[in-house]
Amino acid sequence: MEARGYHVAVVGATGAVGQQMLNTLEKRNFPISKLTLLSSERSAGKKVTFRDEEYTVQTATPDSFEGVQIALFSAGGSVSKELAPEAVKRGAIVVDNTSAYRMDENVPLVVPEVNEEALKNHNGIIANPNCSTIQMVVALEPLRKQYGLSKVIVSTYQAVSGAGAAAINELREQSQAILNGDSFSPEILPVKGDEKHYQIAFNAIPQIDKFQDNGFTFEEMKMINETKKIMDMSQLHVAATCVRLPVETGHSESVYVEIDDLNVSAEQVKQLLKESDGITLQDDPSQQLYPMPADCVGKNDVFVGRIRKDLDRDNGFHMWIVSDNLLKGAAWNSVQIAESLVKLKLV
Amino acid sequence: MEARGYHVAVVGATGAVGQQMLNTLEKRNFPISKLTLLSSERSAGKKVTFRDEEYTVQTATPDSFEGVQIALFSAGGSVSKELAPEAVKRGAIVVDNTSAYRMDENVPLVVPEVNEEALKNHNGIIANPNCSTIQMVVALEPLRKQYGLSKVIVSTYQAVSGAGAAAINELREQSQAILNGDSFSPEILPVKGDEKHYQIAFNAIPQIDKFQDNGFTFEEMKMINETKKIMDMSQLHVAATCVRLPVETGHSESVYVEIDDLNVSAEQVKQLLKESDGITLQDDPSQQLYPMPADCVGKNDVFVGRIRKDLDRDNGFHMWIVSDNLLKGAAWNSVQIAESLVKLKLV
Repeated sequence: MEARGYHVAVVGATGAVGQQMLNTLEKRNFPISKLTLLSSERSAGKKVTFRDEEYTVQTATPDSFEGVQIALFSAGGSVSKELAPEAVKRGAIVVDNTSAYRMDENVPLVVPEVNEEALKNHNGIIANPNCSTIQMVVALEPLRKQYGLSKVIVSTYQAVSGAGAAAINELREQSQAILNGDSFSPEILPVKGDEKHYQIAFNAIPQIDKFQDNGFTFEEMKMINETKKIMDMSQLHVAATCVRLPVETGHSESVYVEIDDLNVSAEQVKQLLKESDGITLQDDPSQQLYPMPADCVGKNDVFVGRIRKDLDRDNGFHMWIVSDNLLKGAAWNSVQIAESLVKLKLV
Repeated sequence: MEARGYHVAVVGATGAVGQQMLNTLEKRNFPISKLTLLSSERSAGKKVTFRDEEYTVQTATPDSFEGVQIALFSAGGSVSKELAPEAVKRGAIVVDNTSAYRMDENVPLVVPEVNEEALKNHNGIIANPNCSTIQMVVALEPLRKQYGLSKVIVSTYQAVSGAGAAAINELREQSQAILNGDSFSPEILPVKGDEKHYQIAFNAIPQIDKFQDNGFTFEEMKMINETKKIMDMSQLHVAATCVRLPVETGHSESVYVEIDDLNVSAEQVKQLLKESDGITLQDDPSQQLYPMPADCVGKNDVFVGRIRKDLDRDNGFHMWIVSDNLLKGAAWNSVQIAESLVKLKLV
């Protein structure tokens, strides 16, 4: 590690995730010798404060990456497609928070609690998984290691901040309009680029990202495919139903798993997860203690509760997994990857 | 059937469900010769309009049921426990919307689309199932009949109106407080009678009803036990995770099922459900057509969509089931039972 730190670039510095990346770099006291803040042309010129210093955000171009050692990308898939290779060409390691490279077999898809070692095989780009995938695999990995894992069925309860700052505004404005009895016109959710838009306030929308031909949405297929890749379990059975809720931040997941071991109690699963990295166990029905999105905001951990054994299958368990989708689901996992790169002397 | 109709009593006439019962009786033009509106002492004296006539709600006592032929109860389990036998003693048939008698082996638990014939074995009391159970079994029954059914895993997305009118007010007031940046103090949800109360606005609470010793909530165990009883499948594997959402009315359910037949396509399941009683199929990903709670309010049907075959199991299917929890989940199913009693000449 260089004594003074690294030249770090944040691409998409003005977005919801970019802002959390800067907060996280600051909180973690990440060793930064120089910081370059980049964005699309639209947001360039904006002022951003980091460690009490004011930065002007620049338009990202290939030459922006001269001298950059670590580039955190979160400005949309097309920006990553265009500029991540340019950054790598100039010697940077890219941690990409978009879906552009996640399923590329030459790109490690990393959640440090699960597959930090995969970083060693990087070719310049490292992909940060989808938010809903990250928090789930953090909870699944200890089960896999200890008991073996064969099946996962997840239903999600996802916050609007996963769809960006405009979706947060839409939820707030729509909620106010409904409370006032005013009319409103949905324009962003469920998917900004899709044809129809629906009410999100006081509603639940079973669509996140567009539909594939097989009837699953891209979000659901991300959870299925990314989970298999991160856990290196191509044969794992995974199914997902992804639903958007009128929650600002914090994704929740109702997860059913089947493990290989038939002789495990719910108490053992609780104990195992309690001792696992990156997890806070919140599980005490007698105290009405369980994770909720409103409680997880601003925290890096994955919160797990409602752990109970299936009533019909000895190897089946149900659980409820909650995390801040902007932190562990995005900014914190990206910074954590950068910290792992430093720790493993890969940068 | 008597030409002029029946003497009907509604117990709990001023509550959220009671009001919907009266609306539904009116809309369905149910044959009523005399209407008696009853409630606890607290709500007695309130005025209620039915078919342009004003009624004063009376305190329910055993003698209130003299001459009553059909009594619809929705005033809480303790009222049903005390007064349903008194109503039966006086010759009434009771349709009880509380959980008081649901698992009583002498009491039929009825969803007319599924087990209308069970009404023939009644002993005076007929139980109306839990709201989240009703909408699910309406969608499951055609699958069971056509293909056989072996396993059900459901995660619910439940509206606050299931917890009564006070919970609706709490959601509205809390939402406004949060939008204003004001403080607030949760007092009702998740469970009025439980010790702790949590924010419901812009949150998701994985607790409905109190916890049992096995880690499941009573709501979850209701879904499990009632489903087996209604479908007469004691060996059916059912698991449930029940979650309360900031939605006013309309329960949603993400349901995974396994059928016995290995050679069924998602298209066949869609066609089957489309042709089934009480179901409206809303399933066209190319048009972003799927059920949502905001669209189901005020409608009697169960709405089903997002039907797709599991990617790993040929006999596994995922679907999304939505219905108005105050109508098919409560008032409409109760009135529908009354209509079946008339049709089957059991009253």
